[in-house]
Amino acid sequence: MPQFTPPVRDTRFVLEHVIGLADHAALPGFQNATPDVVDAVLDEGGKFVAEVLFPLNASGDQEGCTRHEDGSVTTPKGFKEAYTQFVESGWGTLSGPEEFGGQGMPHVISMAFQEYMISANMAFAMYPGLTHGATAALLVKGTDAQKAMYVPNMVSGKWGGTMNLTEPQCGTDLGLIRTRAEPQADGSYAITGTKIFISSGEHDLTENIIHLVLAKTPGAPESSKGISLFVVPKFIVNEDGSLGARNALSCGSIEHKMGIHANSTCVMNYDGATGWLVGEEMKGLAAMFIMMNAARLGVGLQGLGIAEVAYQNAVQYAQDRRQGRALTGPKEPNEKADTLFVHPDVRRMLMEAKAMTEGLRALCLWVAVQADLEHAAPTDEEKQLAGDLLGLLTPVIKGYGTDKGYEIATNAQQVYGGHGYIAEWGMEQYVRDARIAMIYEGTNGVQAMDLVGRKLASNGGRAVQAFFKLVGEDVAAAKAVPETAAFAEALEKASGQLQAATMWFMQNGMQNPDNVGAGAYSYMQIMGLVSTGLMWLRMASAAVKLKAAGEGDAAFLDAKLMTARFFAERILPDAGALRRKIEGGSESLMALPVEAFLAA
Amino acid sequence: MPQFTPPVRDTRFVLEHVIGLADHAALPGFQNATPDVVDAVLDEGGKFVAEVLFPLNASGDQEGCTRHEDGSVTTPKGFKEAYTQFVESGWGTLSGPEEFGGQGMPHVISMAFQEYMISANMAFAMYPGLTHGATAALLVKGTDAQKAMYVPNMVSGKWGGTMNLTEPQCGTDLGLIRTRAEPQADGSYAITGTKIFISSGEHDLTENIIHLVLAKTPGAPESSKGISLFVVPKFIVNEDGSLGARNALSCGSIEHKMGIHANSTCVMNYDGATGWLVGEEMKGLAAMFIMMNAARLGVGLQGLGIAEVAYQNAVQYAQDRRQGRALTGPKEPNEKADTLFVHPDVRRMLMEAKAMTEGLRALCLWVAVQADLEHAAPTDEEKQLAGDLLGLLTPVIKGYGTDKGYEIATNAQQVYGGHGYIAEWGMEQYVRDARIAMIYEGTNGVQAMDLVGRKLASNGGRAVQAFFKLVGEDVAAAKAVPETAAFAEALEKASGQLQAATMWFMQNGMQNPDNVGAGAYSYMQIMGLVSTGLMWLRMASAAVKLKAAGEGDAAFLDAKLMTARFFAERILPDAGALRRKIEGGSESLMALPVEAFLAA
Repeated sequence: MPQFTPPVRDTRFVLEHVIGLADHAALPGFQNATPDVVDAVLDEGGKFVAEVLFPLNASGDQEGCTRHEDGSVTTPKGFKEAYTQFVESGWGTLSGPEEFGGQGMPHVISMAFQEYMISANMAFAMYPGLTHGATAALLVKGTDAQKAMYVPNMVSGKWGGTMNLTEPQCGTDLGLIRTRAEPQADGSYAITGTKIFISSGEHDLTENIIHLVLAKTPGAPESSKGISLFVVPKFIVNEDGSLGARNALSCGSIEHKMGIHANSTCVMNYDGATGWLVGEEMKGLAAMFIMMNAARLGVGLQGLGIAEVAYQNAVQYAQDRRQGRALTGPKEPNEKADTLFVHPDVRRMLMEAKAMTEGLRALCLWVAVQADLEHAAPTDEEKQLAGDLLGLLTPVIKGYGTDKGYEIATNAQQVYGGHGYIAEWGMEQYVRDARIAMIYEGTNGVQAMDLVGRKLASNGGRAVQAFFKLVGEDVAAAKAVPETAAFAEALEKASGQLQAATMWFMQNGMQNPDNVGAGAYSYMQIMGLVSTGLMWLRMASAAVKLKAAGEGDAAFLDAKLMTARFFAERILPDAGALRRKIEGGSESLMALPVEAFLAA
Repeated sequence: MPQFTPPVRDTRFVLEHVIGLADHAALPGFQNATPDVVDAVLDEGGKFVAEVLFPLNASGDQEGCTRHEDGSVTTPKGFKEAYTQFVESGWGTLSGPEEFGGQGMPHVISMAFQEYMISANMAFAMYPGLTHGATAALLVKGTDAQKAMYVPNMVSGKWGGTMNLTEPQCGTDLGLIRTRAEPQADGSYAITGTKIFISSGEHDLTENIIHLVLAKTPGAPESSKGISLFVVPKFIVNEDGSLGARNALSCGSIEHKMGIHANSTCVMNYDGATGWLVGEEMKGLAAMFIMMNAARLGVGLQGLGIAEVAYQNAVQYAQDRRQGRALTGPKEPNEKADTLFVHPDVRRMLMEAKAMTEGLRALCLWVAVQADLEHAAPTDEEKQLAGDLLGLLTPVIKGYGTDKGYEIATNAQQVYGGHGYIAEWGMEQYVRDARIAMIYEGTNGVQAMDLVGRKLASNGGRAVQAFFKLVGEDVAAAKAVPETAAFAEALEKASGQLQAATMWFMQNGMQNPDNVGAGAYSYMQIMGLVSTGLMWLRMASAAVKLKAAGEGDAAFLDAKLMTARFFAERILPDAGALRRKIEGGSESLMALPVEAFLAA
């Protein structure tokens, strides 16, 4: 019943006018992303996901994955064929390195495509998504032999990849893992333990699955410093690249989840499975963070992707459904009722969704290009800035982006009234699917702590200072332009709240770190407002310039300017309240004893 | 896996110190609610729901209801036995009128019990809940013969009741209904049409189901002014009270819903079913609002009930689960990790839940007692005030209360991390169940419009002025007491924002009613903050007095004071941001044409 149209025009606007893709055209990797190629990726990639993946979204949710008695797992009807088509069309290879068979394009292009894939079918998108994360870790930490053995087939999508971190007794606190890795005479390790919540852990889409597994070697300390990373293939790979023996690992069960039913979330049992160390022993946490950081951006993108498709359908429903009359008098007197679209409170939900999805799209792509520029930028200074922004904003995109994704999906469901609660209409699936993105790859509370506890403080606050400088420069320029002055002032005010909150942390965090922890979530939310606001300032400024030059679609540009105004009037005001909450400190959060919560 | 303990102590605190139940002891109805009786209801009623209904909550969700080929519906395993026990114990009769076999207690006592029942099993609670709504309409609008025929068995719970409003083409806009009522020679009507989303529409719990159905008589206008209300029993009732012929109505299907699976939400087909007019012809909307207003309070209570049980489990999990270390250093160095409870961001979620559930409990019970005082208060002035407050705050409890219920359930799920997403842990059911309360009985957007469009304006703003007067008096008194002065000032500020927003509507609504519609939701949210805040002020003031008198449990009272402080520091600040959003007006919401939303 739902529909999906990839928002190609908006993506292109962001790539051209916010990212300034043309400005980077001469940089390594970017040469592969010529305007023609980018157009083809957006148009053809969008078409592929809309025509092939989207029709499997609802049926995949209803059917789910099936584990058989022998431990094998089949994905829902149609998934295998769609995956084969996905691999044959090369959609998974966009940003894979050319030396391993990829197309060598910048991550930002891959991100643009991935957003569409998530909108079309989030559970499906997770299969190649996890493979990308595992590939990233092997590329950075693996030996040349390991790369040669695994990466080409992972880039092509012939093999899948997974990340095995969580165990029943530990999620966030990976120092508590119990999976053991016993060194063998031949240099390999025997891996034994149980992992849970393993996305894409076992399935029928690929010939082989390359598991990356965190485990502890004998005598390793009982903390995160004792963790090592291992590559543990489902089928051992022979030296000639052919598949050898089945490894001693299996899917014990599939979790019964609230959503993403079409992704097989597995309990994985390792029973002395053969694995090989990736990177150095007891340096597994660093290797894991390579996977995690890539994955966190991808999860943030899930917030956006679900929000976009839910929003599109709410817009359509608001135009199809007739109920009641406009407050200002009947808009279509010949009909028995006006459309939902005339009601201000319905418009509020649609405009919030429009403002947030377009803002988050710009932010996701802008941060993704920092990941490219971190390596490709011409100067060390630019590389450092890109890396700083990437590190600072990755937890914001993950935490704030997925909160907003859930909120927008919930509001889109709300537009449907009672029909939104009924499975056949498809909206409740979006809410259930969106919910997991706030939890996995580090809960959003963990993201907030990563932001205030690590990213703010590192290098003497260099990243956040650079961010404030960027905002300040853009605000100053936009204040001088009549059409953007009001927006710039609203953003300046919100940015001022963020700076004041930062200062408050500096003044009150040392004496009591709980003061920082207590305000972390609100801080992440203000940072989300200001960074999304910066994107809206750039979109509005671009719209003004294009209009002045008589370029672009005037209606599209006018909509950008009006949506920016909505963002300033209806979304940015939260920054002040959030700052006040931070300044409340930790006392009223931490004062009560356990008994005060239990005594009913 | 989840647990539930009825929060009896907190309910009792509210009844004694916020409602002042003893002050009303001499009023009609309240005589039946002696302290001993109230204690018995809370203790024994709480015990009943915890022991009998709660164990069926998860299994009921998993199994759902089953429609058989003959159109009959069976509820999940154990429901019928539990319902029989419910009826035999008389838990449904608490506030039923004595002349029809009820216990004649005030609604506030019934509400206190219903909260527990919802926490224990929301889908179950809906069966008697709908019966209460239908009974209320019959009591006010039915003839003496109709009351005598139906009400005693509905009060006892032997028969069920439903409300049949929605049709495929109309939900909010009931003027569009197509169900026809053709007058018959014997004074009855032949009812024909299809109703959807009918909660408890068909089931195996009761001998008979008394459907109240909105339909249109021949020639009635095509608007809500043409609606009449009919009583249409599943089995025709003979004059001697025995059951006669099966009526020509049936359950066509059960909806596939996101949650409340154990309540049978039916498509109901009326094929010339025999019905009788309730009240006057074409005055059905007024009769319906009797059901609706009672039901809206009940739905608001669902927000609270789900929030309470979700919160309790999150607290327990936060104490059981060990992960990471406190920011201020290990709290239990001998354990491998501290409990989740030490982390400020987990405490934030738990304190928000605590502050909101206790605040909403007080508000629900305080508004429920207004429904009693509207009829029982000694003077006409007091009756009018009670009626005004009931009308004003019913949409707030429904809209704000259910938004908060969903938010708290979502946060409670978040405390569980990945386990929160897994069905076995029970938390995702609370989120799915809580979601419907924001939609049915008028979406929360409709509640906001009821508040600003009808309740604010009626009688020249008398109700809201009375509300501001109450807040002002309480604030003035509390400012003079050192322990409550800071809270009173925070509430005064939030109430000032609400007054400013009210003024803004008066100044800007006349020229453009969309300005009111655009701010309606934010207004409802500020009203939620201020009314819940008023309850916290009263709880804090009571705690101060009790402590000074050396009465009560000091730890419980200290927790009230600290939670009030949290409410002031962490929840009330939103009022300012919400006011600023209202003052943004409607222009940026309404300006964009349809095409601007579709052009992707």
